[in-house]
Amino acid sequence: MANFPKKVYLNGEISKASDAKISVFDRGFLFGDGIYEVMVRLDSDFFFGAAHLARLESCLKKVTIEFDITTLQVEIDRLLKAAELEVKDCLLYIQLTRGVAPRKHSFPKDIAPTVMMYAIPFTLPDVNTQFVTVVSQSDFRWHRCDIKMTSLLGNVMANDFAIKKGHYETVFHRDGKMTEGSHSNLFFVKDGVVYTHPADEHILKGITREIVLKICRDTNIPYREEAISFENTKQMDEAFLTGTSTQIASIKQLDEHVYHNGDRSGAITQKLQDLFLELKRGYTPDMNYEDSSNLLNSL
Amino acid sequence: MANFPKKVYLNGEISKASDAKISVFDRGFLFGDGIYEVMVRLDSDFFFGAAHLARLESCLKKVTIEFDITTLQVEIDRLLKAAELEVKDCLLYIQLTRGVAPRKHSFPKDIAPTVMMYAIPFTLPDVNTQFVTVVSQSDFRWHRCDIKMTSLLGNVMANDFAIKKGHYETVFHRDGKMTEGSHSNLFFVKDGVVYTHPADEHILKGITREIVLKICRDTNIPYREEAISFENTKQMDEAFLTGTSTQIASIKQLDEHVYHNGDRSGAITQKLQDLFLELKRGYTPDMNYEDSSNLLNSL
Repeated sequence: MANFPKKVYLNGEISKASDAKISVFDRGFLFGDGIYEVMVRLDSDFFFGAAHLARLESCLKKVTIEFDITTLQVEIDRLLKAAELEVKDCLLYIQLTRGVAPRKHSFPKDIAPTVMMYAIPFTLPDVNTQFVTVVSQSDFRWHRCDIKMTSLLGNVMANDFAIKKGHYETVFHRDGKMTEGSHSNLFFVKDGVVYTHPADEHILKGITREIVLKICRDTNIPYREEAISFENTKQMDEAFLTGTSTQIASIKQLDEHVYHNGDRSGAITQKLQDLFLELKRGYTPDMNYEDSSNLLNSL
Repeated sequence: MANFPKKVYLNGEISKASDAKISVFDRGFLFGDGIYEVMVRLDSDFFFGAAHLARLESCLKKVTIEFDITTLQVEIDRLLKAAELEVKDCLLYIQLTRGVAPRKHSFPKDIAPTVMMYAIPFTLPDVNTQFVTVVSQSDFRWHRCDIKMTSLLGNVMANDFAIKKGHYETVFHRDGKMTEGSHSNLFFVKDGVVYTHPADEHILKGITREIVLKICRDTNIPYREEAISFENTKQMDEAFLTGTSTQIASIKQLDEHVYHNGDRSGAITQKLQDLFLELKRGYTPDMNYEDSSNLLNSL
């Protein structure tokens, strides 16, 4: 059972979790009208932190919540200090909502966004070495999955569906094509080629998904941003999930179809896990997310 | 500009709106993991209140939030008394969320749901006599629109899109078929026959939609629960929206297509508005929603 964090940041104030309260008229509560990010801190720096903040900024723009993202770093530092997590590995959650206003569907003018953050001690294993099983569902979520929003009822229903059946995750198919998991991206491997759904409006452009594709480019593993049809999933050689906390997790079984017996990942998945681990160990905070070729080429 | 209510009910406590605060770990805030209802009170009774509460109960079941709906009536009465709205026409908003827990996608066990309600003075006109204009968008919302949930970002984005362009509402089409509005149901009339999308998982089964269909049955206005294709909307004779606060609103224009010049509703829309008004005037609180034929037959 997860625990509440020791400290919560809310609109400039840092308090105990039990004292962190928002108005019931916050549009995050009334409408799920908010954006969020989750990132992990390793060796006193956030792993691809700049990429996470860039995505937060991009998603806020997509839903026209105005907020100067550059003000956040100093507040994150304050929170980490108060939570005594400056020099510990941790997970940071950031949520921004449109703010507080009387309930009306259309966007109110001239209100300040709500900013809530917390950090909890969190140590990722070197890479996800658990072999996971997943179940499939028709993708009943909205058609703007590129927006990392807090209107997550569809996602949490799907995740709960998997957990209740003893699986790690639900993976979706939409119009017969595999899209992604309820809180992860989905990859397949066939004849040495890596496949994943293109980063359009039907999936979230995951940071770990981007890292995997970058590793592929830099180490000449062929990949295609092409959706695999649901019926072809059984013909795939390997399958894996990616995500900030999932990292790279080998899929042992999808519905009734078994990819491997759980002794070890498929060859390409294993290679990507090894390279991801090297990347994490070689991580330097001044690394440029958009052009990390220097670091990756040196792997 | 809407105002905050004088009093808010939150988990048994009634307070000023500015004092009504929830934990940032409420799943309504973190995940949009909640259900809501809006109903209006006329002449000291809620208009089809039993139907609204039945829908609330049904939606809570769909998302497995456990709550005994029969406990609500006495709390609603307490709230109305505190807000001095017992004998005034008002609007009641009810929101239930799964409750407070550390952030984790799957559903936590053994937590109590959060119950929030407020009432504001609200007088509906006899029937909506405003001729509204609407714009269309591809339906990018999720595929469980039958659930009246608080993960409403798609709905509020669509409504804001319409409002910013000077229209009343956005109406959606999915796979080429007209579904509903962002917070209303959608009807068309052609050659004296009323058409509306079937009450499947792609629309909310609106109470006013049900009332309109009941009026049709009882007064021998032919109707079909069939979706109209987007391309055929221009061939329709009349179009209108329904909703708890929208009531029955005649659509003057959809995108570029003009249905009428705004002098008066089409003949069938007008007839339905007249009958709806009669129903409201003849409303008795012991009326059975599922079998209101006695009242309606007497119109």
